[in-house]
Amino acid sequence: MKILIINPNTSVEMTKGIDEVAKKYAKTDTLIETVCPKEGPRSIESYYEEDLVAQGVLEGVIEANEKNYDAIIIACYGDPHLQSSKEISDIPVYGIAEVSMHMACLFGHRFSIVTVLERARPIFEELVRRVGLESKCASIRTTKLRVLDIEKDPSITLEILTEAGRAAIIEDGAEVICLGCAGMAGLDKPMEEELGVPVLDGVVCAVKVAEAAFDYKIKLSKIKAYKRPEPKEFVGLQKFIISR
Amino acid sequence: MKILIINPNTSVEMTKGIDEVAKKYAKTDTLIETVCPKEGPRSIESYYEEDLVAQGVLEGVIEANEKNYDAIIIACYGDPHLQSSKEISDIPVYGIAEVSMHMACLFGHRFSIVTVLERARPIFEELVRRVGLESKCASIRTTKLRVLDIEKDPSITLEILTEAGRAAIIEDGAEVICLGCAGMAGLDKPMEEELGVPVLDGVVCAVKVAEAAFDYKIKLSKIKAYKRPEPKEFVGLQKFIISR
Amino acid sequence: MKILIINPNTSVEMTKGIDEVAKKYAKTDTLIETVCPKEGPRSIESYYEEDLVAQGVLEGVIEANEKNYDAIIIACYGDPHLQSSKEISDIPVYGIAEVSMHMACLFGHRFSIVTVLERARPIFEELVRRVGLESKCASIRTTKLRVLDIEKDPSITLEILTEAGRAAIIEDGAEVICLGCAGMAGLDKPMEEELGVPVLDGVVCAVKVAEAAFDYKIKLSKIKAYKRPEPKEFVGLQKFIISR
Amino acid sequence: MKILIINPNTSVEMTKGIDEVAKKYAKTDTLIETVCPKEGPRSIESYYEEDLVAQGVLEGVIEANEKNYDAIIIACYGDPHLQSSKEISDIPVYGIAEVSMHMACLFGHRFSIVTVLERARPIFEELVRRVGLESKCASIRTTKLRVLDIEKDPSITLEILTEAGRAAIIEDGAEVICLGCAGMAGLDKPMEEELGVPVLDGVVCAVKVAEAAFDYKIKLSKIKAYKRPEPKEFVGLQKFIISR
Amino acid sequence: MKILIINPNTSVEMTKGIDEVAKKYAKTDTLIETVCPKEGPRSIESYYEEDLVAQGVLEGVIEANEKNYDAIIIACYGDPHLQSSKEISDIPVYGIAEVSMHMACLFGHRFSIVTVLERARPIFEELVRRVGLESKCASIRTTKLRVLDIEKDPSITLEILTEAGRAAIIEDGAEVICLGCAGMAGLDKPMEEELGVPVLDGVVCAVKVAEAAFDYKIKLSKIKAYKRPEPKEFVGLQKFIISR
Amino acid sequence: MKILIINPNTSVEMTKGIDEVAKKYAKTDTLIETVCPKEGPRSIESYYEEDLVAQGVLEGVIEANEKNYDAIIIACYGDPHLQSSKEISDIPVYGIAEVSMHMACLFGHRFSIVTVLERARPIFEELVRRVGLESKCASIRTTKLRVLDIEKDPSITLEILTEAGRAAIIEDGAEVICLGCAGMAGLDKPMEEELGVPVLDGVVCAVKVAEAAFDYKIKLSKIKAYKRPEPKEFVGLQKFIISR
Repeated sequence: MKILIINPNTSVEMTKGIDEVAKKYAKTDTLIETVCPKEGPRSIESYYEEDLVAQGVLEGVIEANEKNYDAIIIACYGDPHLQSSKEISDIPVYGIAEVSMHMACLFGHRFSIVTVLERARPIFEELVRRVGLESKCASIRTTKLRVLDIEKDPSITLEILTEAGRAAIIEDGAEVICLGCAGMAGLDKPMEEELGVPVLDGVVCAVKVAEAAFDYKIKLSKIKAYKRPEPKEFVGLQKFIISR
Repeated sequence: MKILIINPNTSVEMTKGIDEVAKKYAKTDTLIETVCPKEGPRSIESYYEEDLVAQGVLEGVIEANEKNYDAIIIACYGDPHLQSSKEISDIPVYGIAEVSMHMACLFGHRFSIVTVLERARPIFEELVRRVGLESKCASIRTTKLRVLDIEKDPSITLEILTEAGRAAIIEDGAEVICLGCAGMAGLDKPMEEELGVPVLDGVVCAVKVAEAAFDYKIKLSKIKAYKRPEPKEFVGLQKFIISR
Repeated sequence: MKILIINPNTSVEMTKGIDEVAKKYAKTDTLIETVCPKEGPRSIESYYEEDLVAQGVLEGVIEANEKNYDAIIIACYGDPHLQSSKEISDIPVYGIAEVSMHMACLFGHRFSIVTVLERARPIFEELVRRVGLESKCASIRTTKLRVLDIEKDPSITLEILTEAGRAAIIEDGAEVICLGCAGMAGLDKPMEEELGVPVLDGVVCAVKVAEAAFDYKIKLSKIKAYKRPEPKEFVGLQKFIISR
Repeated sequence: MKILIINPNTSVEMTKGIDEVAKKYAKTDTLIETVCPKEGPRSIESYYEEDLVAQGVLEGVIEANEKNYDAIIIACYGDPHLQSSKEISDIPVYGIAEVSMHMACLFGHRFSIVTVLERARPIFEELVRRVGLESKCASIRTTKLRVLDIEKDPSITLEILTEAGRAAIIEDGAEVICLGCAGMAGLDKPMEEELGVPVLDGVVCAVKVAEAAFDYKIKLSKIKAYKRPEPKEFVGLQKFIISR
Repeated sequence: MKILIINPNTSVEMTKGIDEVAKKYAKTDTLIETVCPKEGPRSIESYYEEDLVAQGVLEGVIEANEKNYDAIIIACYGDPHLQSSKEISDIPVYGIAEVSMHMACLFGHRFSIVTVLERARPIFEELVRRVGLESKCASIRTTKLRVLDIEKDPSITLEILTEAGRAAIIEDGAEVICLGCAGMAGLDKPMEEELGVPVLDGVVCAVKVAEAAFDYKIKLSKIKAYKRPEPKEFVGLQKFIISR
Repeated sequence: MKILIINPNTSVEMTKGIDEVAKKYAKTDTLIETVCPKEGPRSIESYYEEDLVAQGVLEGVIEANEKNYDAIIIACYGDPHLQSSKEISDIPVYGIAEVSMHMACLFGHRFSIVTVLERARPIFEELVRRVGLESKCASIRTTKLRVLDIEKDPSITLEILTEAGRAAIIEDGAEVICLGCAGMAGLDKPMEEELGVPVLDGVVCAVKVAEAAFDYKIKLSKIKAYKRPEPKEFVGLQKFIISR
């Protein structure tokens, strides 16, 4: 199968990191391609930055549908533009947050999200409620890390996130940790070793679930929430008119 | 005070209708200006169409802040880009859905939203949960109306929406009706007459609450959810870099 | 418009303080009158004291309806007798708690209520649930202040409440503070200055929203929850028989 | 033990009916006395009527405490003034709604409340949420019966309530029925026979649970929610000053 | 009346302790018999141990029905096999957790469960949600005690549990304490003395409520959740085939 | 990888059907073995029947751990004994209900469960709440089918379930259907064809997710909810003592 991973920010390093971790765990006959928008912020830590890359993400979704991909993964832990992507897509679209949270529930009673700056908390609180798993989320643990700090000094990053994970386990009752940023690729197993509980990378979770659903031939439900938008006139933005 | 109303779609007629109803109920010393994005779909009935106008809406928000407006209203019942707008704004930003739902709670035990196509239901269900008023929402009543049908034959529109409102009252226990589309401007009072319960237009609610909050000098809380995004490098989209 | 504010306790000082703050923010053509019951406790900090002033509050509501007021505000943060007042009133009745909590939601992701004694917590917990905003309430912060202490030494009061507000912000994630007592009139802006987040006085919120709703001509929904009570025989209490 | 039952309305017939059913199921060594306020409406079907009898109910509670009763039951299905009564009482106070709903949960997965006029629905919805059992309440089934109709033609009353109960069972999934009015005394067992599910009278439930708690010597928790009100000055209402 | 109490573990001492406390508070004409399964673990602190005694508990339920008992109590705070027991029983079956939690709600605004090892927390969290009282549960306070430690040194046990109860009161806002283990028989009143709030033993609560319900002749609802299982073929386990 | 599927009932036909569907979708290098207990009812439609097979299921779990399986699937839609199985297992254990419900959330806004007799509704309602997805479950649709009817006349079964699925889509807003019985193996794709929405078989979902998690090396969290039970003395049941 062919999976297109869309990293919504414009960090080439992060795009590469995501690609690597995805390929590492993908089945041998799974083809992974990872892209990022042509324009936009280097990292995404706010609703504003999410919104700015809307068109970039949606272009990716349109292209993946045209080029016969089998699945799309949006690789940013806010799951930005996931709903709109599902609306215009005939192939499944996965958000790394939704998939990793659902997965987490199978391996422990409660999970925590360990992530970047405190400002992301309201975004993630809304996200957890949208996914519907608020009763399973022990906590959201924020840190002093900005997204672009993550790769600067991997050992410090690992230390900070492990500490946050430990606090989630001891103080909040977490039994599984979800890494709350696509840029944390590769930190899962080292943290797992330290903490003694499953630590899930959303990108890997999404790749594996995409493969599983592909084998079972599960399609997106297109009858209501993800129904294709109605045909209508556009002013400009002609490339976004989806003829159907 | 000066209020900028942003109609996120590109329908000039609807923009005009919104402007008229806003001015009708505004105080004499309130200056209203209503704009719409330069490009985008004629109407918004999906997450996809919401996402496509992100940049258009945000440009309006940036401009309103630069040009010394006192408040911004986003006039589309999905409250698109409300959170990102609040992040980058120093002046209050109101969504017509959030304001009308909060207002509705003061005049009846339960409210219903009467709106366009069935496909909007999941969008509004998420919205009601995000606003936090799911226990006060009696129902979302959808109809066969598309957004752009609304102005075609006002008397038919009124009939369809009144019928939906009546069903909400009788079958779902609604005591207040919220009009679930900015394009329904002017239908509130005729429906109210028919139904015998308050019928709220979100644009009017937002204008009046904006005035109220202006008098009381309430500002947006900028410490967490609506904190200004972190400074960072952009690829392209330079006009969206907010120096601060 | 003419607004009757009913302070349910019998403190003349507090009634005066409420009247002043209401007039300070009211529009020039808004007529404010503030009254309190002829008998009852000096302050209200329990369900018991709330219940004792039921007749006093309802007499005020009946009078306001007879004397052509346009709106009624019940100025006690437990919103005592709000539902019964709405039942017998043809004009809108506002509770300062319900209005300030709904307002708070427009300016921040979460609000906290800063109030008097710990014993009020269960009352406010029930109130928040009744209003339906439990998912938006970060915390209820109680203090050592009794209602009647508030005016004794304004600077100490300000200090204690500011400290409680700061704790709500830092420890509970509050982004807006609601002052949980009508007697805290005038403390909003000084606290706001200290804390850097919006601080809302319920009386002012209610006055401004009453004006807003008056301009928009919103009426109470009288079809179910706030339907006028059925005619029936009374033993004594003849002044409370509402002729129809 | 000695139980004082307070019927908050002024219907002598209903007071007598409550007294009879309470004595029918009480243990032989339980002394029951049933009283009603000196003034107030003949029946209670609204928040307004509830509020008007506040002082009457509270006088009863004070008296029961002074006269060495062991428990108090408030016999009106809205549980009016239950919280304030618990505040000022050293002996347990039971609401017939709270007790019957908790009891119902032990005998079936879901219960429904079968009651009088539709206007009571919002009152009962709030009540169920206050008791905290909204996930166990299948429905509230209202009828055309006014409280004072109940005793007029017992066979018609029985028929109407049985029909409502049957609808609750078939359409809403109820497995236990709670009779939503103290005036329905004696209808439980005939309805039970018809419907084949437990039908609970709140007065009987409260008497039996009061006896059970008395034997086990359970006291009211007086440390927070039901803490005695603070001493303070009163204007008038001197009989309500509780010296302590 | 005749009550069969089933202690699901095989501790003879605990069975005796339960029997004693049940008899201590039972009415003089209530016959109590307390049994435990022939095989199984000495104590129950996990889902695993609960599941292992399923057949033992159900045999007791079948026997109680055959031998004309009037009620059954399952005396383990996880309420193991309560639903299946209700399915096959014609007489009421009570779980000590469900009964004590419902009772607790009548005497305070919030209750906490004070119990054994931290590992029981997820079990009790699920239980509280199943009973439906999550909004009334202030906290679950676990300790270092294993079930079998409880009787080893009563004074140390009392000290540990009292300390946990005090923390629940001060830090979590509990107003009533539920003893979260059937083995804590007899500790209720000593703890109550120390803590100044009601402390409830589930076995006593269940006995008293069973008596109350017996007097009122409340039966189990057998129409849906607790309907007798369908007749069907069994491989082995012939004694569990319930002919009907 | 090696997966042990445990069908908790003793129907050899159903065990075979489950085995076939599991193998049909498993990867070529996945080894599936499907077993059922030596004794117990032919089908499971009640809590009682679930409880009776506890030991049979747990024996399977112990054996799978001893014989170096990599994952266990419990193939009954009530997810019986899932929690206890996870406690004693070092390898992941999946319930077909939990996995299919989590999967369903990725392909539509709301899912419905289509299942056997009405008596299963309370069991599934509790299950959905335990899994935590009550806000995503549109409905539980029961039918007249008993478990053992399913295989009798496949075309009638298909018709009945398709009709129930259609009702769930049209009346309840379902966008994905979960087959609520392990015995419905093979009906997913025919129903999907009819209904035009994804129809998920829990066994297949569990097999595919087990493979996905195996590739990603996710382990069960053994620190709290699924911690191995404490060592302790057993009376009888010696084979269930897990030495560690």
